[in-house]
Amino acid sequence: MMMIRKDSFSAAHRLHNPRKSADWNISTYGKCNHPNFHGHNYTVEVAVRGPVDPDSGMVMNLTDLKQAIADVLLLVDHKNIDLDVAEFRDGQRISTSENVAIWLFEKLQARLAERSLAPQLLHRVRLWETDKNVFEYP
Amino acid sequence: MMMIRKDSFSAAHRLHNPRKSADWNISTYGKCNHPNFHGHNYTVEVAVRGPVDPDSGMVMNLTDLKQAIADVLLLVDHKNIDLDVAEFRDGQRISTSENVAIWLFEKLQARLAERSLAPQLLHRVRLWETDKNVFEYP
Amino acid sequence: MMMIRKDSFSAAHRLHNPRKSADWNISTYGKCNHPNFHGHNYTVEVAVRGPVDPDSGMVMNLTDLKQAIADVLLLVDHKNIDLDVAEFRDGQRISTSENVAIWLFEKLQARLAERSLAPQLLHRVRLWETDKNVFEYP
Amino acid sequence: MMMIRKDSFSAAHRLHNPRKSADWNISTYGKCNHPNFHGHNYTVEVAVRGPVDPDSGMVMNLTDLKQAIADVLLLVDHKNIDLDVAEFRDGQRISTSENVAIWLFEKLQARLAERSLAPQLLHRVRLWETDKNVFEYP
Amino acid sequence: MMMIRKDSFSAAHRLHNPRKSADWNISTYGKCNHPNFHGHNYTVEVAVRGPVDPDSGMVMNLTDLKQAIADVLLLVDHKNIDLDVAEFRDGQRISTSENVAIWLFEKLQARLAERSLAPQLLHRVRLWETDKNVFEYP
Amino acid sequence: MMMIRKDSFSAAHRLHNPRKSADWNISTYGKCNHPNFHGHNYTVEVAVRGPVDPDSGMVMNLTDLKQAIADVLLLVDHKNIDLDVAEFRDGQRISTSENVAIWLFEKLQARLAERSLAPQLLHRVRLWETDKNVFEYP
Repeated sequence: MMMIRKDSFSAAHRLHNPRKSADWNISTYGKCNHPNFHGHNYTVEVAVRGPVDPDSGMVMNLTDLKQAIADVLLLVDHKNIDLDVAEFRDGQRISTSENVAIWLFEKLQARLAERSLAPQLLHRVRLWETDKNVFEYP
Repeated sequence: MMMIRKDSFSAAHRLHNPRKSADWNISTYGKCNHPNFHGHNYTVEVAVRGPVDPDSGMVMNLTDLKQAIADVLLLVDHKNIDLDVAEFRDGQRISTSENVAIWLFEKLQARLAERSLAPQLLHRVRLWETDKNVFEYP
Repeated sequence: MMMIRKDSFSAAHRLHNPRKSADWNISTYGKCNHPNFHGHNYTVEVAVRGPVDPDSGMVMNLTDLKQAIADVLLLVDHKNIDLDVAEFRDGQRISTSENVAIWLFEKLQARLAERSLAPQLLHRVRLWETDKNVFEYP
Repeated sequence: MMMIRKDSFSAAHRLHNPRKSADWNISTYGKCNHPNFHGHNYTVEVAVRGPVDPDSGMVMNLTDLKQAIADVLLLVDHKNIDLDVAEFRDGQRISTSENVAIWLFEKLQARLAERSLAPQLLHRVRLWETDKNVFEYP
Repeated sequence: MMMIRKDSFSAAHRLHNPRKSADWNISTYGKCNHPNFHGHNYTVEVAVRGPVDPDSGMVMNLTDLKQAIADVLLLVDHKNIDLDVAEFRDGQRISTSENVAIWLFEKLQARLAERSLAPQLLHRVRLWETDKNVFEYP
Repeated sequence: MMMIRKDSFSAAHRLHNPRKSADWNISTYGKCNHPNFHGHNYTVEVAVRGPVDPDSGMVMNLTDLKQAIADVLLLVDHKNIDLDVAEFRDGQRISTSENVAIWLFEKLQARLAERSLAPQLLHRVRLWETDKNVFEYP
C-alpha cells in the first residue's frame, strides 16, 4: 500500500555553477541563470509504502506525515534556496529540481527518523517545478 | 501497456475502531473520528495492464471497464461507507482510504471476472480522499 | 480590485425537507436524499472587492482573510451539516449548496465584522460541491 | 462575447515598503518580507470583450493576443520583479499581486495599442499568485 | 444565486470561411485551417441565475439541468462540427469557439424551454477549447 | 532520478479497422467509429530516467527534451492522425490511444537519437485522451 501526501512551497533560486564559466552557465541554464533570481511555487508529493496496520487501518498516521513534511518545508518556504538553505549555499549543490528533490528526500528521511516514524517507509519524492516539469526521486 | 480510467463517488464515513477505547480513537483519528460522520468526493483511478490486442488496438475495451467501475461505485456512491457497505459495517473494516482502496480492488477484480473481462489485467487502484491525500493499492 | 482566496472543507449531509412527503423528497433530491448521509470535499472561494491601500499595496491583508475563513470553516469541516450546524438542524434550512453558500456568506460577513476587517468588502462566495457543480452567491 | 487566454511566468520578489519601518513590514507582510526574496509561478488570465467579427467569427485574433501577452511577460518571466521591472524598482510600487495585476493590465493595454489591436477590448486581468490566491483587475 | 454545471464533449472541426480566399483563411486561421480537420476536448460551463426556491433550496433542479445539457451535447459529441451540426454546415457559421459558444447558448435556451425549465434563468455559457483558451457568452 | 515533461496537441481521428466489418467496428468502437471524425486535446507526459550529471545537476537538459518533444508533436498537432500521420494511414495502425502512445515513444526515441540526446534514457510515455482516460507505455 502506498500513501501519498501533497504539499507546496514558494521559493526563489538561480541555476548557476560557480565552478564553471559564465558562457557554460548561460548555454546550460539559459534564462534560469538570470543573476537576480527567479522563483516558483513548487508542489511536493511524498510517498510512503508499507503494510496496513490492522488496528488503525493506516500505513502511517497522516497527521504525523503532514507534520514531518511541514517541518522540512519550513526550511525552504518563502526562502531563497541558494542563499538560505545550508546545503545549497555557495554552489555546493546547484538548485536544479533534481537536486532539490534529492535534498527533500534526505531531509524527510532524517525528520521521520527524529520523530520515530519508520523512515524506511519513505518511498519517493515528486517535485513539480511548474505544472509541466516534474521530477521523481529515486 | 497500461490503461487508466478515472471516476469518482461521494460518500460519508467516520474513522472509528469499536475494538479500541474512545481515547485511542481520538488520538489516532482526530477530527475524522467525529461521531456524526463527515464526507468526501473520492476520485478513483483504475489501471489495467496487458498486451495490446492487434485487431482492436486496445488493452481492454474502455466501455467495458467503465461499466465494471460504475457497477462497483454504485455500492458506495451517495452512501455511508460505515453503514451501507456490508464489509465495513460494525467496524469489520475501518473505513480509512487504505481499506477503501483495497475493497475497491477486490470488488473490481470480482466484477471483471463476473463480466468475463480478464480480471488478471487489473493492475492497481488509486484513491484520492482529497486533492492532497492519495492511496495506491497494491 | 478583487482578491479571491480558496479553501476547502469535508462534510457529510443529506438533502431532505421534513415539511414534505417522502415521495416529494425522493423525486426532488434522488440519491442525495439517502437517509444515512453522504458527503463531499467542498471547495470555497471567497472574494473581497475594494480599493488598493497605497501603503500596503493590498485590498485586505490576506493573512487576516485566511484566518476569518478558517474561523468559519471550523464550524463545518469534518462535521455533519444537518446535525452539527445550528442553522441547518431539524431542517430549518435544507443543506443544498445554494443554502450552504448563503450561510457561508452570512457567517463570513459576521466574522469579518467581529475582527474589524471591513465586512462591506465581502463580494461573493463560490462553493464547489464537486468539480462539476458550482454555486455563487450573491 | 468574452475571450480569455491563460499564460504564466515565474519570478522572484519580496514584499517590502522602504518608506515604512522594519516592524511595519514584518507585521504587514510576514514571511513575504524575507530579505533574500522568494518566488512564484504566476498564472495570468487576460480577458478581451467585444462583438464577434462576422467574417472571422472572432472577437480578436487569438494569435495576436497571445503575442501581445508574450511580449509583456518577457519583461517579468524568470526575473526579479523588484530589481528587474522598472516600475517596481526601489519600492516605487510594492510587488503585491494587486500591484502586479494592475501593472500587467497597463502594459497589455499599451502593447495592444502599439500593435493596433483594439486596446479598448481589454476587459480584465486575473493573476494567480498560488492556486489559492487570485487577484482580478479592474 | 448562480448555479454552474460543467460538462464536456470531443469533436473535430476546421476553421475555414468558404466566402474568403485561401490566403485569407491561412493568414487568419493558421494551423486551424488544416483541411483534414483537427479536434478538441471541449469543456462547457452552463450558468443559471435566479432566486432560490424556498421548498427545495434550489435555483433549478440540477438533475434537470444536467439532462438538458446532455441533450444538447449529443448533437456535437464525437462529431465533426462542420459536417454534422446543421447550423455550421457549408460554412454557414465558422466553427470558432465564439460561434460554438453562441450556438450552445441558443440550443440550451431552446431545450430548457422544451422541457419547461425556466429558460430565462440561463445566464451564460463558458467554453474551454483548450485549458488556455476560454470563451464566454454573453 | 526521473524527469517528466508535459506537453499537448490537438488532433482529429476515428477508430476504424478497415480489415473488419462495419458491425465489428460499431460494436467495438461505438461513437468513436463515427465516419466524419471527432477529436481531442491530447496531453503527453514524457519521462526520462537516469543519473544526475554532477556538473549540471540535471538528468537531461530540459530545453533539449522540450525541443525533441516539440519536433515530434509537430507531426500530429492540428492534424488528422488517420489521414496525416504516415504510420496510421489506410488503417495500418488503428489510432487508439494505446497505438498513439506507442508511436510517440518510437518517434521520441528516434528523435533523441538524431539529436544525440541519450535515447536510452527515454523511460515511458503517458497519453491523456481526456481527463479520465490515460495510457502509459511501456
